[in-house]
Amino acid sequence: MRKLYIYDVHNRTLMTEEYKMVIVVRADLGMSKGKTAAQAAHAAVNVSLASMKKNPDAFEIWTHNAYPKIVLKVKDERELFEIKSFADAAGLINSVITDAGRTEIAPGTVTCMAIGPDAESKIDRVTGELPML
Amino acid sequence: MRKLYIYDVHNRTLMTEEYKMVIVVRADLGMSKGKTAAQAAHAAVNVSLASMKKNPDAFEIWTHNAYPKIVLKVKDERELFEIKSFADAAGLINSVITDAGRTEIAPGTVTCMAIGPDAESKIDRVTGELPML
Repeated sequence: MRKLYIYDVHNRTLMTEEYKMVIVVRADLGMSKGKTAAQAAHAAVNVSLASMKKNPDAFEIWTHNAYPKIVLKVKDERELFEIKSFADAAGLINSVITDAGRTEIAPGTVTCMAIGPDAESKIDRVTGELPML
Repeated sequence: MRKLYIYDVHNRTLMTEEYKMVIVVRADLGMSKGKTAAQAAHAAVNVSLASMKKNPDAFEIWTHNAYPKIVLKVKDERELFEIKSFADAAGLINSVITDAGRTEIAPGTVTCMAIGPDAESKIDRVTGELPML
């Protein structure tokens, strides 16, 4: 992952910051690999489109930076919405995916969410404690 | 999946057509669920950005149509590139993902590709024989 160098005018130092997207998946649904991949792809496209409009600078940095995506897990829907509330409070763009339920799970089931892309430090304050899927 | 109604001026009939994106994943790498999801998300974002520029009508129809994504599998890299050559020949936007190799697999490994979004019938002629992941 390449780094972005930011000149901090207050402290007169060069800082480095990485930009990433995080996808948070519910581990309790027992979704297959294919189902998980489709839901994650849906979430990633959603936040990409949203961030192009609402946070174009972060989106630009991210796309010029090999666009890293990290997939993490939460234990259930409640924990997913807890993470969403932290993301909202931090001003991070996010998108919660509700499945249409054509396969595997009931219609209307919340499956995953994507957050970002944004500065790694800002995202890690919200999802830093979650394990990898 | 909602349908788009197209008026066929030659035959004076209403046709229906669905628009979708297909993600084709290599099954021989034994990637974890998280790794697979990250690669699929990468591919989906890539073709979304490409199709916004090169095929905006298809992209527009797809995003107003619950943006369906189907995840299929190929048995190895050779079959993936065979599918890519068919997609290229059919004029379908596609993106092959090569992993940076920070986790699980060697750097430079081709992991998956995304095709579309485009009309279902057009995509099915290329990927219609592949099994679900």
